[in-house]
Amino acid sequence: MNTQAPTFKNEAALWFEGLQTRICDAIAAADGKATFGVDAWQREGGGGGKTRILQDGAILEKAGVGFSAVWGKAPEKMLQALHLEPADFFASGVSIVMHPRSPRVPIIHMNVRYFEMSNGVYWFGGGIDLTPHYIAPEDAIWFHEQLAQVCNRFDIGYYPKFKNWADDYFFLKHRNETRGIGGIFFDHLKEDATHSKTQIWEFVQAVGEAFAPIYSHLMLKNKDLPFGEKEKHWQMVRRGRYVEFNLVYDKGTKFGLDTNGRTESILMSMPPMAQWLYNYQPEDDAEAQNTLSLLKKGVNWLERDTKKSHSLV
Amino acid sequence: MNTQAPTFKNEAALWFEGLQTRICDAIAAADGKATFGVDAWQREGGGGGKTRILQDGAILEKAGVGFSAVWGKAPEKMLQALHLEPADFFASGVSIVMHPRSPRVPIIHMNVRYFEMSNGVYWFGGGIDLTPHYIAPEDAIWFHEQLAQVCNRFDIGYYPKFKNWADDYFFLKHRNETRGIGGIFFDHLKEDATHSKTQIWEFVQAVGEAFAPIYSHLMLKNKDLPFGEKEKHWQMVRRGRYVEFNLVYDKGTKFGLDTNGRTESILMSMPPMAQWLYNYQPEDDAEAQNTLSLLKKGVNWLERDTKKSHSLV
Repeated sequence: MNTQAPTFKNEAALWFEGLQTRICDAIAAADGKATFGVDAWQREGGGGGKTRILQDGAILEKAGVGFSAVWGKAPEKMLQALHLEPADFFASGVSIVMHPRSPRVPIIHMNVRYFEMSNGVYWFGGGIDLTPHYIAPEDAIWFHEQLAQVCNRFDIGYYPKFKNWADDYFFLKHRNETRGIGGIFFDHLKEDATHSKTQIWEFVQAVGEAFAPIYSHLMLKNKDLPFGEKEKHWQMVRRGRYVEFNLVYDKGTKFGLDTNGRTESILMSMPPMAQWLYNYQPEDDAEAQNTLSLLKKGVNWLERDTKKSHSLV
Repeated sequence: MNTQAPTFKNEAALWFEGLQTRICDAIAAADGKATFGVDAWQREGGGGGKTRILQDGAILEKAGVGFSAVWGKAPEKMLQALHLEPADFFASGVSIVMHPRSPRVPIIHMNVRYFEMSNGVYWFGGGIDLTPHYIAPEDAIWFHEQLAQVCNRFDIGYYPKFKNWADDYFFLKHRNETRGIGGIFFDHLKEDATHSKTQIWEFVQAVGEAFAPIYSHLMLKNKDLPFGEKEKHWQMVRRGRYVEFNLVYDKGTKFGLDTNGRTESILMSMPPMAQWLYNYQPEDDAEAQNTLSLLKKGVNWLERDTKKSHSLV
């Protein structure tokens, strides 16, 4: 990535590559047992990446942290989808999904990315969202507070806007349920009357740097909580929903598979094991039922009174 | 389904409903332990169906046999996809996926369906395909022979045409592998210079009736073959690919989820449990490697010499 003249593209790719290293080091330290391997890959049309996977950790069962910096002729499908004229493109970013062993530790996803076309069009995108198998309100509130604090350093309007965007995006229409408790999601962010490109880049960097401390905290806080067969069973069902979201709705996954991306890197987000039971209802699991009741859009975690379990929205 | 005047639509729906019963009875008898429950459902826009599920059988871990007969205003998405003018539609059929316990018994799928529009457009579609976790050449040859025999009773050109269609359809582009050993697949079949509507309907019925004897044979022949942890592990990996096909490519699944179909009936095809490992290669499993080498288009099972393990195409 170092062979070109210093451009914003190079700066962004180098920073994303460094972020991948910092996150892998921090998460492996929190896990305490396994480390992240490295698979470097090249893309035929230009560029490549490093896929880093941890499997069989103490806390994490399967965790993937992908970095890529790719360029070349923009695929026809991309141009059509975005209504763009033919041009060269450059895209770089870091993408993460982590599946813990314990159903008491949430699944997490993070993505930060930069996209640029040779005709000058560019944008940033990204987000972090949390998918607890069992929603622990105090963790959900804390998680959203952390994201709000990151957003508020840049624009007081970001958190409400990007929180709603996450609610809309991380939604399984065919289940009429959200993937988890949401978080923030943003796309096509570029300079405008109130934000320079540099300011937006700093925001994206802040989101990326927030990941490791947020998830390390949630890992360590919840790793020793007790669970049994019932909770493992429910975890497998929730992982099935995670698979459904990623294969049916996730734009990055669909686009990657459509455009001959590196399949193993794209599908590193899949859980290690998942389950589907016909018409399953967790009738003997009140906590699971409560979780289902909270998998909806519009829950305002920042104004939630933890003592009232349904006083939301 | 009995309240309308006798039309072909009624005849077809009644026949499909009867086929569902016959198949459930025959497969439950072959399983010997569990039976198929019945979930009747209504569709808001018109019609409904019966979803029949067997779970925790002796041979079958999860098996679904769906019948539906639905009608009403054609969904916008359907009209666009098929380049049709707005009209009422009627669709009826039987759809099956069966996931056995043993990795030595193959997964099977069958679908037969009739579709009609109020403007006179109609067609039949369907197919049967087999997804062995481990390909047993003699079973693959026998399976294709059975399908060829059914086809040959109606048109000597059907089997080669519909076999190639299955190879193309049951294909995971992002893995560059077929779902299994294929079978037959056909769609938009209607009367032409050499086949009346009645003849095509008889062919579709013959495909439907072929299912239970074919799969009962494969269940009973293979149910007692030995397997261990290594084979169960590979089964979970193959089931993961089955999930990928169904959620990424299967037209019925995608269309159903897009048009607010009954989710639990659409996703009855999901395996009970599936697994994803990063970049998994079955290095210690020569049989699995041989299976992978056969998951490609264009294998001519009818002309295969079982003594030469790769003399295909």
